[in-house]
Amino acid sequence: MSQTGQMISKKEFTKLHSEIAPFIHRTPVMRSRLLDIEAQTQIYFKCENFQKMGAFKMRGATSAILALSDDQRAKGVVTHSSGNFAQAVSLAAKSLGIPAFIVMPSSAPQVKKEAVKTYGGQITECEPNIKARETAAKKIQKKTGATFLHPSNDLQVIYGQGTAAKEFLEDFPELDLMITPVGGGGLLAGTSLAVDFYSKNCKTIGAEPFEVDDAYRSLKSGKIEFNETTNTIADGLKTHLGDKNFPIIKDKVSEIIRVKEDEIILAMQLIWERLKIIVEPSSAVAFAGVLRAKEKFRGKRVGIIISGGNVDLRNLPF
Amino acid sequence: MSQTGQMISKKEFTKLHSEIAPFIHRTPVMRSRLLDIEAQTQIYFKCENFQKMGAFKMRGATSAILALSDDQRAKGVVTHSSGNFAQAVSLAAKSLGIPAFIVMPSSAPQVKKEAVKTYGGQITECEPNIKARETAAKKIQKKTGATFLHPSNDLQVIYGQGTAAKEFLEDFPELDLMITPVGGGGLLAGTSLAVDFYSKNCKTIGAEPFEVDDAYRSLKSGKIEFNETTNTIADGLKTHLGDKNFPIIKDKVSEIIRVKEDEIILAMQLIWERLKIIVEPSSAVAFAGVLRAKEKFRGKRVGIIISGGNVDLRNLPF
Repeated sequence: MSQTGQMISKKEFTKLHSEIAPFIHRTPVMRSRLLDIEAQTQIYFKCENFQKMGAFKMRGATSAILALSDDQRAKGVVTHSSGNFAQAVSLAAKSLGIPAFIVMPSSAPQVKKEAVKTYGGQITECEPNIKARETAAKKIQKKTGATFLHPSNDLQVIYGQGTAAKEFLEDFPELDLMITPVGGGGLLAGTSLAVDFYSKNCKTIGAEPFEVDDAYRSLKSGKIEFNETTNTIADGLKTHLGDKNFPIIKDKVSEIIRVKEDEIILAMQLIWERLKIIVEPSSAVAFAGVLRAKEKFRGKRVGIIISGGNVDLRNLPF
Repeated sequence: MSQTGQMISKKEFTKLHSEIAPFIHRTPVMRSRLLDIEAQTQIYFKCENFQKMGAFKMRGATSAILALSDDQRAKGVVTHSSGNFAQAVSLAAKSLGIPAFIVMPSSAPQVKKEAVKTYGGQITECEPNIKARETAAKKIQKKTGATFLHPSNDLQVIYGQGTAAKEFLEDFPELDLMITPVGGGGLLAGTSLAVDFYSKNCKTIGAEPFEVDDAYRSLKSGKIEFNETTNTIADGLKTHLGDKNFPIIKDKVSEIIRVKEDEIILAMQLIWERLKIIVEPSSAVAFAGVLRAKEKFRGKRVGIIISGGNVDLRNLPF
């Protein structure tokens, strides 16, 4: 499987889902008559904000840790993350009884640091830049022998993230479209794989802010593009694609739609006010895309994966 | 039934629930491992914030309108409310195809005025005091022949509110305690009736802010007490009990617990952060009571009715 870089089969994917199932929630799907009217279509929200630790990343972290050998597990896992993946690795490692070493930028929201500690992760703080993060993680790897887990560019993680889409299609096989936000590309790649396995007609679409439209440009140019600036409220979507997920996205994702910052905030507010649930700005990007291009989605059954709900309540955009 | 002031039987209550069921949501119950740890007990949250129009009041409004004669229905209904009951009457009336006249204080949150309009309610604004509200409602009653609906001191409304507790006990018959916030007393009275009908051992507890502890004092003195000031964030709980609900509360509620304002805000924040759901300050009062007196609730299975989720996002206490 992922260990060799080979692509997973449908049977293996189904097995993987059953293996991680005891460690994750099967999240509910919510609907709102008023949001359907607002969007002039039928929208289904898969609520990964209700996932353990508050985001879909619990799926990928669990999947990656389950794939480790006993020897590897004994030495633990290490990652660097400013947010949800840090919490996911901490909690998944705790569930499976192994140590988790987490490198976090000193600028990470306090609520996320506290959550990592609650879940038993051992935090090492570093300067808020990617170089400092990588250096700190390598140092820990060398010292402890822990296995490094990448939040999005790891096939085992990608497969895990895709299990949300599998559940979604089991509950609502009639979906015409499935939309996820795209940042590092793990959720989008995993979703497109699952859609390919478990639906005949459903198409996968990615959504990202104009401010960090690297995935949009990558699909256009055929190679991984980067962002020079990352001035977006959707803090989970600032990263770029990787060599493991990009080939899947190129093969299976039909389109990337882009949205403006004010559209993200409005979509987030509508979801909060109408569904009465807490979602991250990154999660609102997919719904913002539907509101922006209503004609494109009219008459379709649109599935949106709400990626997470970990927000700093003292720092809201409303 | 309520028309004659006589108390409802269990059989009639069960029938009433089946009659309003097509017009309301059967709301989910949520749990959180982390909140259980925080409260050192087992807590079950019945999510009436996911009810139609975002609060339990949809139940009572529907119940009251269904009890009207055809003649009465033709002339419509009128109420005065600063918030949730206005929305509930508007939507329930719309569902049943009758006009709703809503008197709202000019100071009511914009989000609530907009919601009333969305649901088809015809708003008359008045000065933000109870006298102006009553005068305006009477004027409309006289002009249109509409039936006045009281948000909490109406037996048919009280019975409707109690259906949440009936569903709660159907899903979790093992509950030892059921806690609701108490403002006007409709939810608490209805809940205590349903608990009496559908559980042998469960007890009903009310929760309110120290700042508006009229229900606590009423139970002590044996007569309806009032609040001289209403300096609480729990804007749904500023009113006092009425002659219809107080006898029920006196008979069936075992205790009223009181909480401080900062405890309400902390409880609200914990619910938002951990359950990822939007709840009103009034809804957080019951959970605040559990956190305040942990010894009292230890080892119990505690059901909390989350009363609603209509919050003005531009005016949060965090």
